[in-house]
Amino acid sequence: MRTQVSDRAAATCILMLCLVCLHVTALKSQLFTRLGALPYSPEPPVSYKTFYFDQKIDHFGFLEDGTFKQRYLLSDKYWQQPGGPILFYTGNEGDITWFCNNTGFMWEIAEELGAMLVFAEHRYYGESLPFGPDSYSDSKHLNYLTSEQALADFAVLIQNLKGSLPGAQHSPVIAVGGSYGGMLSAWFRMKYPHVVVGALASSAPIWQFTGMVPCGDFYKIVTQDFAKSGHNCDASIRKSWKAINNVSSTVSGLQWLSEEFSLCAPLKNKNDIFTFKSWLQETWVNLAMVDYPYEANFLQPLPRWPIQVVCKYLSFDSAVSDYQLLQGVSQAAKVYYNYTGSSPCLNTSQTATSSLGYLGWFYQACTEMVMPMCTDGVQDMFEPEEWNFQAFSDECYAMFGVRPRADWAGAVYGGKEISSHSNIIFSNGGLDPWASGGVTSNISHSLVSIMIPDGAHHLDLRYSNDLDPPSVRAARALEVKSFREWIKKAKKTHCAAPTH
Amino acid sequence: MRTQVSDRAAATCILMLCLVCLHVTALKSQLFTRLGALPYSPEPPVSYKTFYFDQKIDHFGFLEDGTFKQRYLLSDKYWQQPGGPILFYTGNEGDITWFCNNTGFMWEIAEELGAMLVFAEHRYYGESLPFGPDSYSDSKHLNYLTSEQALADFAVLIQNLKGSLPGAQHSPVIAVGGSYGGMLSAWFRMKYPHVVVGALASSAPIWQFTGMVPCGDFYKIVTQDFAKSGHNCDASIRKSWKAINNVSSTVSGLQWLSEEFSLCAPLKNKNDIFTFKSWLQETWVNLAMVDYPYEANFLQPLPRWPIQVVCKYLSFDSAVSDYQLLQGVSQAAKVYYNYTGSSPCLNTSQTATSSLGYLGWFYQACTEMVMPMCTDGVQDMFEPEEWNFQAFSDECYAMFGVRPRADWAGAVYGGKEISSHSNIIFSNGGLDPWASGGVTSNISHSLVSIMIPDGAHHLDLRYSNDLDPPSVRAARALEVKSFREWIKKAKKTHCAAPTH
Repeated sequence: MRTQVSDRAAATCILMLCLVCLHVTALKSQLFTRLGALPYSPEPPVSYKTFYFDQKIDHFGFLEDGTFKQRYLLSDKYWQQPGGPILFYTGNEGDITWFCNNTGFMWEIAEELGAMLVFAEHRYYGESLPFGPDSYSDSKHLNYLTSEQALADFAVLIQNLKGSLPGAQHSPVIAVGGSYGGMLSAWFRMKYPHVVVGALASSAPIWQFTGMVPCGDFYKIVTQDFAKSGHNCDASIRKSWKAINNVSSTVSGLQWLSEEFSLCAPLKNKNDIFTFKSWLQETWVNLAMVDYPYEANFLQPLPRWPIQVVCKYLSFDSAVSDYQLLQGVSQAAKVYYNYTGSSPCLNTSQTATSSLGYLGWFYQACTEMVMPMCTDGVQDMFEPEEWNFQAFSDECYAMFGVRPRADWAGAVYGGKEISSHSNIIFSNGGLDPWASGGVTSNISHSLVSIMIPDGAHHLDLRYSNDLDPPSVRAARALEVKSFREWIKKAKKTHCAAPTH
Repeated sequence: MRTQVSDRAAATCILMLCLVCLHVTALKSQLFTRLGALPYSPEPPVSYKTFYFDQKIDHFGFLEDGTFKQRYLLSDKYWQQPGGPILFYTGNEGDITWFCNNTGFMWEIAEELGAMLVFAEHRYYGESLPFGPDSYSDSKHLNYLTSEQALADFAVLIQNLKGSLPGAQHSPVIAVGGSYGGMLSAWFRMKYPHVVVGALASSAPIWQFTGMVPCGDFYKIVTQDFAKSGHNCDASIRKSWKAINNVSSTVSGLQWLSEEFSLCAPLKNKNDIFTFKSWLQETWVNLAMVDYPYEANFLQPLPRWPIQVVCKYLSFDSAVSDYQLLQGVSQAAKVYYNYTGSSPCLNTSQTATSSLGYLGWFYQACTEMVMPMCTDGVQDMFEPEEWNFQAFSDECYAMFGVRPRADWAGAVYGGKEISSHSNIIFSNGGLDPWASGGVTSNISHSLVSIMIPDGAHHLDLRYSNDLDPPSVRAARALEVKSFREWIKKAKKTHCAAPTH
């Protein structure tokens, strides 16, 4: 039995892109985190003030009574006080200044709505560390890193702002967030409807949990993006894994691969090949997430519609040799990693930073944010891997000393039974793999889905661009229309209420 | 400064009826707990099965991964499966068998609704002790005693029942609770609307928190109950405190008082007098809570409309002497403590049991359930006492090593801003002091208040009685009508939903 367990653990290690091997990070965790860590600059400079708010470390227990400084950024340049609305970004797993600088949508609509902007940092990320440098030291210090605590932070912060900022007392607040931040904004409206009048949850996979959507949908969307971006593009990538296995089976092949991909550290053994394939898989996923219609500077600078550019190198027919195929894959990878030509070599362990963002999201994935993923190599272009919860759990236990609870997110946030809530917009991009776990059809007249067929990961939250497709322009217009309706209704309710 | 702090602490000690002096329990805590501990027998015998469910000790953190056995009682005698409704009692601060045996309303309507009954015990009470006999040993073990954890217990339990009981998968669940259990049922619907389709919150003072209602309203209602139950009844009690002070100022007076009240332990000093007055104050409050229209056996057996009986002994004019007045008070107290004539003496420390129920509610009052109370001696019949949060906090810290958070309940449960929720009935009795913190007018078409002018504390949840006033009969009928509507709508929604 022990052997079997080990085998299963190993299998999951592949699926999870080796969560416990720090040199390659868990793919599904990675995705979110990457987003938090995008170091590109926003188009116009933004101006805000930075504040710190004393938050309870534990909202749900009274033994730990300490506080920490939660960072938040505030811009009131266009705020029409008293009573002007507040757009509140529910920060996700990264430095809040990144989200602030890169959520152009909020900056672009502040003036027309007369809105104050607030960007609140998520605990355990950026500067908002409950125990300072010790925050990640062990599972005891990590114990307060949960979405529930983060939502409570947001609620307490907003109630404090409304109580302390002159003119804010009756300001309707709207939650805005993307990706995990979008999940938070939706959940925030569900759990604290007395605090926010509505929420925009952009590219928020609130259903990417156990039993809610098929575990293979995520990678199917990635595959579809490549399939439609060039002749045989997905088929070539599907073939590439075996080609890598074939070529890497000899020492000379390993050397050839290392040189062809201009790897900083040459491949030496099976483990390196595993890492190498995980790194490539992650590259294709990232490309799917950031397949934007204009040149942008993300983790790497990229051309417009980057998958189309990548696919130019992957348009092979069935007769292609392993070496020819992998030359194409190499060229394709370099579009992502060396578009500007300034990278002397490619680093397959580059995702293995010690960034708090990464580690924090790992922990969250290992506790509440259990998102089953799988591939079959048929409906997607990846090597087949089943979802193995037990092995995943064992890896989490080895890494953090905690075990994930597969059903908790559904139990606490309602899963698919959310129809009694109101005033949430779920926007999703048709190109975005995370749409797999998103709300992509209307649930009620006030739980609305907006699809952006040509959009990748929360395109609608980005600055507008001349190359934006009409679908994202329409989405933004609809979102602002809903904001106005929520604000109007909130003001009406307030004015009608008796004073007390 | 130290003297001043001591003074303030002493002042609060009076208000709180000496939370830190275990010989007299905190009044406002006491009230709830008493309810949990009512050892009277229900009219018809009830039949249920007892089960235990493995609950996570901590739903909101992953370091503590242990489980405990949560007790719940189940009766499916009248359940129409598949899909028949489930009436779910959200247990409060006491042994669940007490609530089960004494919530006759649920037993009486089970057949007509074809409903299963479930009574879930609140963690840290009855047999549902997260750490067994150590559960109350210190603040570390008490750390998981919160309403949020209790609500999560209920949600997880229901989802498990629906997943495991054949025929229950699509059963609509309705939460029912009284007093603190009513607060839980309302909050349960607010926070877990995907789990319960509606809630009956009977005598649930969800607004008895800081800044929501005047702190003196509670004791005003107690006073009104006495004022309308006999000539000068409230005035006599208002005078009695000074009379006690006067009489007890001499050794012979102390002795007289002890004999007149047939006290088991004679009064000896100022501290005893303080305890004595607290005990009397609590007696009047308890009478107001249980001022039912029929003879009932509560903490003590009582006649119908007990305050009217009590007031017969308190109908004095202004010329009454201190001794005459206190003779009346003594007779009045004996209605409450010795109606059957079987008590050889009265015990002013009788509330100082080591019952877990008491201690648990003390802890909850010292953390989340901070309910400011005050008296002014003018609009109420008690000695004037201001609410002093700091002193209260200091006492909590001395007792449990934790400090209360005055604003948390409002922040997490919405305070008065609950209009976006739905399907909650708030029923309140006009005689019940806890109506002071209740929802006593409609908030929306589906957040409905039902007033029972002649009702004391959650009369509607009790077995029906020939002497029930029409108002409580009408209330119960309205409640059942709403239950039927919620059930009907839930079934419709379920049938209309696509299968997945």
